[in-house]
Amino acid sequence: MITKLISKIRKTNAPIVVGLDPMMKYVPEHIKKAAFAEYGETLEGAAEAIWQFNKGIVDAVCDLIPAVKPQSAMYEQFGVPGMAAFKKTIDYCHEKDLVVIGDVKRGDIGSTSEAYAVGHLGKVQVGSSSYSGFDEDFVTVNPYLGSDGVNPFIKVCREEKKGIFVLVKTSNPSSGELQDRLVRDEKHSVDRPVYEIVGEQVAAWGNDCMPEEGEYSYIGAVVGATYPEQGRVLRRLMPNAFILVPGYGAQGGRGADLAHFFHKDGLGAIVNSSRGIIAAYQQEMYSHYGEKAYADASRAAVLAMREDIMSALHQVH
Amino acid sequence: MITKLISKIRKTNAPIVVGLDPMMKYVPEHIKKAAFAEYGETLEGAAEAIWQFNKGIVDAVCDLIPAVKPQSAMYEQFGVPGMAAFKKTIDYCHEKDLVVIGDVKRGDIGSTSEAYAVGHLGKVQVGSSSYSGFDEDFVTVNPYLGSDGVNPFIKVCREEKKGIFVLVKTSNPSSGELQDRLVRDEKHSVDRPVYEIVGEQVAAWGNDCMPEEGEYSYIGAVVGATYPEQGRVLRRLMPNAFILVPGYGAQGGRGADLAHFFHKDGLGAIVNSSRGIIAAYQQEMYSHYGEKAYADASRAAVLAMREDIMSALHQVH
Repeated sequence: MITKLISKIRKTNAPIVVGLDPMMKYVPEHIKKAAFAEYGETLEGAAEAIWQFNKGIVDAVCDLIPAVKPQSAMYEQFGVPGMAAFKKTIDYCHEKDLVVIGDVKRGDIGSTSEAYAVGHLGKVQVGSSSYSGFDEDFVTVNPYLGSDGVNPFIKVCREEKKGIFVLVKTSNPSSGELQDRLVRDEKHSVDRPVYEIVGEQVAAWGNDCMPEEGEYSYIGAVVGATYPEQGRVLRRLMPNAFILVPGYGAQGGRGADLAHFFHKDGLGAIVNSSRGIIAAYQQEMYSHYGEKAYADASRAAVLAMREDIMSALHQVH
Repeated sequence: MITKLISKIRKTNAPIVVGLDPMMKYVPEHIKKAAFAEYGETLEGAAEAIWQFNKGIVDAVCDLIPAVKPQSAMYEQFGVPGMAAFKKTIDYCHEKDLVVIGDVKRGDIGSTSEAYAVGHLGKVQVGSSSYSGFDEDFVTVNPYLGSDGVNPFIKVCREEKKGIFVLVKTSNPSSGELQDRLVRDEKHSVDRPVYEIVGEQVAAWGNDCMPEEGEYSYIGAVVGATYPEQGRVLRRLMPNAFILVPGYGAQGGRGADLAHFFHKDGLGAIVNSSRGIIAAYQQEMYSHYGEKAYADASRAAVLAMREDIMSALHQVH
């Protein structure tokens, strides 16, 4: 799947992933009205509204981008009907040949991580049949529990030719509280931040997870656009890891900050934008599209983001 | 909710939580057969089987225990129907007046953690109505993203009078890879493990989260039974935090290891057992119950666990 992701990035010339993180306040009135008319102001109504909202955006941008990243939390907030909308969104994106990164940030002890891996990337056995639970192509994984929590994902990835992105340095303001703490590295007699230690683990896990062709393992890393200096260090520490970069746009990351997350050939990273794309019509710059044409505004925002990133890459490399 | 948990622990004289982590291999044949007859060998069939399995256990042990802890992963592996069984289990446990700890180990950046908190502990607004998504009483939270990821949970807990357990030192063998790393503490000029740093954060978050009555905040911690020495240190570092202790039984923790997780009054911790209770009938000691009476075997295992823990507490304190 990492090979497919890279080939689609090359084809679209857009190292961009659109975060499908629907909140009710982003959904245009006409969509909510139709959904509530059919299902009432219920969880089912909300789930229908976010699914229709997603579908409009996917239809408008699917030829421009290689991948989408639905954020599980935004669906879980609507309970079981929300999870059904999550699954429907994943299936629809597959129909449109998009790579789907499930932003689930799961991670647990061995047997439990295995159940998460099976549910999101693999197939579960039921009697003599087997089924995909959610069927993403990649998921994000939290490293706090160590190798036990990550290895079951790697095992399923190997079987299913899928991949993961491990949280290394997250984009939020307080990520440093734990991730920037200096840890004693006895071997090298220096103090090094936690994110470097985790980055080295990602590199080590990836060594055994190279696809038959290509330079990137299917064990990637999450490093926030809001921390470009750390991105530069981590790019060097994990030369074969693809980096998923959140935090562009609404969270403050700019194109110029991103160059160091990429290799010189312009590959090695994929940049996520959620609100900046899916709620573009609510920004002044795109407000002339109006609510009804919200998906056209999203398309314009994807084109602008591609321009911003590609020009930053050309300037530096 | 922490007040209710403590009052139920006092009433049952059992600081025990039963982990409802159903795997198909634990479910007796007669339950699978009935579920598959109705729904086929499908995800719906599997979800029906684990729900009926849970219901049998809850009916058999609900008068003995204060709380249950369904593990989200074991339901997510069966996709959307699995999540419906998760919700059904939560609702049924509430009917039986059990405290429900959702073992979801979520954690993300601010707005996303807020959606998780709303979905699992709070209420989501849909038009002019509001709904509970999953409606647990407590959830487990991963601290890797720092305060940004935890504060939205605290906010919802305050509004809903619910609580969280933050992962501090997990029970699995590789938990030390990150959690035991020594971090430079400039203020005290010493090196201290990551789990102590996180434990201090839990204590600090808890200071502002005390219920109107009682000595325990509604910000608890997860510390594995498999690490009793660390449990002793953390008990001292977080005097007002309730500790959720996984790893008893199948993972190797014994009653004698648990004493240090408790305060001298016998409160302050609640010990989880999953496989050891729900699949008790598959152990030699309880095999005479047979598959059909699997729930009676679970009841016997709860009684034995209560005895083991209470006698360990009496010996030490």
